[in-house]
Amino acid sequence: MIRVLIYNEFVHERESGNKAGEIYPLGIHQAIADFLNKEEDIQAETVTLDDVSEKVTAEKLKNVDVLIWWGHMRHDEVPDSVAETVMEAVLNGMGAIFLHSAHKSKPFMRLMGTSCSLIWRESDDRERIWVSAPYHPIAQDIGPYFELPADETYGEPFGIPSPDETVFIGWFSGGEVFRSGCTWQRGNGRVFYFQPGHETYPTFLNQVIQKIILNAVHWTAPSYRINNCMDCPNVPRPEK
Amino acid sequence: MIRVLIYNEFVHERESGNKAGEIYPLGIHQAIADFLNKEEDIQAETVTLDDVSEKVTAEKLKNVDVLIWWGHMRHDEVPDSVAETVMEAVLNGMGAIFLHSAHKSKPFMRLMGTSCSLIWRESDDRERIWVSAPYHPIAQDIGPYFELPADETYGEPFGIPSPDETVFIGWFSGGEVFRSGCTWQRGNGRVFYFQPGHETYPTFLNQVIQKIILNAVHWTAPSYRINNCMDCPNVPRPEK
Amino acid sequence: MIRVLIYNEFVHERESGNKAGEIYPLGIHQAIADFLNKEEDIQAETVTLDDVSEKVTAEKLKNVDVLIWWGHMRHDEVPDSVAETVMEAVLNGMGAIFLHSAHKSKPFMRLMGTSCSLIWRESDDRERIWVSAPYHPIAQDIGPYFELPADETYGEPFGIPSPDETVFIGWFSGGEVFRSGCTWQRGNGRVFYFQPGHETYPTFLNQVIQKIILNAVHWTAPSYRINNCMDCPNVPRPEK
Amino acid sequence: MIRVLIYNEFVHERESGNKAGEIYPLGIHQAIADFLNKEEDIQAETVTLDDVSEKVTAEKLKNVDVLIWWGHMRHDEVPDSVAETVMEAVLNGMGAIFLHSAHKSKPFMRLMGTSCSLIWRESDDRERIWVSAPYHPIAQDIGPYFELPADETYGEPFGIPSPDETVFIGWFSGGEVFRSGCTWQRGNGRVFYFQPGHETYPTFLNQVIQKIILNAVHWTAPSYRINNCMDCPNVPRPEK
Repeated sequence: MIRVLIYNEFVHERESGNKAGEIYPLGIHQAIADFLNKEEDIQAETVTLDDVSEKVTAEKLKNVDVLIWWGHMRHDEVPDSVAETVMEAVLNGMGAIFLHSAHKSKPFMRLMGTSCSLIWRESDDRERIWVSAPYHPIAQDIGPYFELPADETYGEPFGIPSPDETVFIGWFSGGEVFRSGCTWQRGNGRVFYFQPGHETYPTFLNQVIQKIILNAVHWTAPSYRINNCMDCPNVPRPEK
Repeated sequence: MIRVLIYNEFVHERESGNKAGEIYPLGIHQAIADFLNKEEDIQAETVTLDDVSEKVTAEKLKNVDVLIWWGHMRHDEVPDSVAETVMEAVLNGMGAIFLHSAHKSKPFMRLMGTSCSLIWRESDDRERIWVSAPYHPIAQDIGPYFELPADETYGEPFGIPSPDETVFIGWFSGGEVFRSGCTWQRGNGRVFYFQPGHETYPTFLNQVIQKIILNAVHWTAPSYRINNCMDCPNVPRPEK
Repeated sequence: MIRVLIYNEFVHERESGNKAGEIYPLGIHQAIADFLNKEEDIQAETVTLDDVSEKVTAEKLKNVDVLIWWGHMRHDEVPDSVAETVMEAVLNGMGAIFLHSAHKSKPFMRLMGTSCSLIWRESDDRERIWVSAPYHPIAQDIGPYFELPADETYGEPFGIPSPDETVFIGWFSGGEVFRSGCTWQRGNGRVFYFQPGHETYPTFLNQVIQKIILNAVHWTAPSYRINNCMDCPNVPRPEK
Repeated sequence: MIRVLIYNEFVHERESGNKAGEIYPLGIHQAIADFLNKEEDIQAETVTLDDVSEKVTAEKLKNVDVLIWWGHMRHDEVPDSVAETVMEAVLNGMGAIFLHSAHKSKPFMRLMGTSCSLIWRESDDRERIWVSAPYHPIAQDIGPYFELPADETYGEPFGIPSPDETVFIGWFSGGEVFRSGCTWQRGNGRVFYFQPGHETYPTFLNQVIQKIILNAVHWTAPSYRINNCMDCPNVPRPEK
């Protein structure tokens, strides 16, 4: 059983007049939990900004295999200590999937050590996402490319460390390109960033997107975990 | 003084009725040599398929700092021994720049160890090339992106090892994306692959393209060279 | 069922007076096949220099999931075409494990594109091999390090492309260090190089070594394969 | 002129009875500044824990090309805001060199996004440091290896992201190995970590160590800088 915890800021969906609320009446987190919980080997729970300090603790993350993170306007309200806790859990072995505007979330930035900056525009650009690493477990059953009729445009340069693997590269009808799916090993944990998913589009209801997130849950789920990654043990001289 | 040797197959330009001959009457190699030789610190010479076995030898490459390679239809006529010689010269420290259809040239494939395959189409697509590593010496003075009104379309997946750095990513108006500028360290030498440059377009007369190739010559030129990269020395036990 | 094919040059073991024959009377290949065939999910077969051209063909490798390669003095007698066939099978998805002196084998060198050179000495140095990537599937159940009472010494610099992951680093009592276990993605296939295993030591009878090779078989076994990695398809303009 | 700023915690050297004070009466920072300031093209200044908040500001780092950092017992007393400022300066293009126990300094950990943990021991082990990337500018004029008669032992696993290049690998007489010199591109800046330099040994008075630090200053010094790495510009749709 893969235990997934889905964080969503859950702000846009509750703003009056925001399309996000129409598309995701129960929130992006619930939409993701719903399709993941259809899988027999996955058990997904959720957390929002309201209770992030309570539910995202070192102790609770010991029972989470994969953390999925969506945030946008309220990154700053996530306490630094929560970001630190998430980072350490990943370094201990927990998997982590960062979606769309989570590129500027505190935990992702802490794990990357870079600006995670990009260029962007909201103009209903069509996106075609190409598989650049067809062998990668995250890209299975997707085909050579797939399309989203509209999503927010993200463009290069993307301020990340050179990815271990660039699984997807996005093409936007307005002329931008973006490394839309990237992986990094960080300590004992696996990290996947995936670009689609602006709150005003039904991206997380798209079956291809759901398949990719499902693949990513399987790929980032750990087979090896420790609980003391930050220790520097003093070791005796090994005997000859 | 950086000593550059430019290899061009020089077949298309001499085919009757091929636009390549109109655009590059003296051949792509000469067009590249011409703009490089305007630089005070560069001395560029050329070689074609006709004399590749004579001019691309281990002995002669000792006096070449950077080898630039353009080939297309006659990759197979370059002897395996020449590809091996180029590979060893790079591993000893020589720089190498592979242009456009040289992705399937023998020396590039030998240095990559992969298929170097891609998808392609000739349909006069417009290409916008984005700088994804703005700090890279090869990307200096280019701006965030530049455009080519038309070139052959190359698309992902590109069968290369994960690049050390992805300097450029290309966007094509027909819907493809491509890692258009990539670098790899190979032994003591630096390798740069650059995608634009189909023979029926005046790509190598474009000033931005020329600037990038010039930057790449400076970046790949070696500061360290050896002449025995293939040796495995038997070493005595170091004294304590 | 993971189908493994083990190549061993099988020269030293049949040389009169060579210790290799005492340690591995049926050859290194058979010693490896023996412990792998104890696993329920593995079916290992063997091939030697004598029949390499017959058994290592594109057609036969379609039914091999993981190829293990040990060679030493007769690398040159393996036909170039066999090396090419192995390389393409890996790029299509087959896993490959290269042991010890196979660092200079033709298939490994083709996949790396580098010299694969190193320094070496036969002086019965003790080796302590450290796990530098404890999370890696190949390093499971090994502990922080293990020791070999004696093996041939290999030392840096090792002429390889920067590994995707450096799983093991070896320490030799004579003063050398070596990246003893390294992985690379090449096309759709996974490659693992592992340094221990000189023919005059019973290294492949060591249970830790056997566990690592077993781990590596599981890790390199493909979940995705194609059969046309070298193709560059011409693609129509995708419809909007 | 390369403007270098050297941070040293400057605690051990002022502790009564600590050998550090005998070896570096004016502090490690001053010892490093002294040999760097002999170079015509370098101008080195210093800062200690006492004035780090005053001298390590975003404004002042605009006039620093390379920051060198040594810290040990008082990492926690460096304000988070200073670590953040250093990280952003690197992402904007400033070079950074982290020495020895700075592996657990806040700025280095922020740039890596990992634990930076290791194993260690103080037992006067002899260290032999091998050059594993002989072509690298940081390794020039060092030879295949050099030795330190004694330094603190650091051992794998080292909790870092896979380095872009592993320039040095250390061998310790007590049986450990360590990736002693590693580089990473982070945003527009270059980062170098170098393992030797425990405060109770005269490591920074060693001429080979000085040469390596000098090489690293030249290599990390930026040719490209920006001042707004954290921005995500909203961009208009490019005109066709």
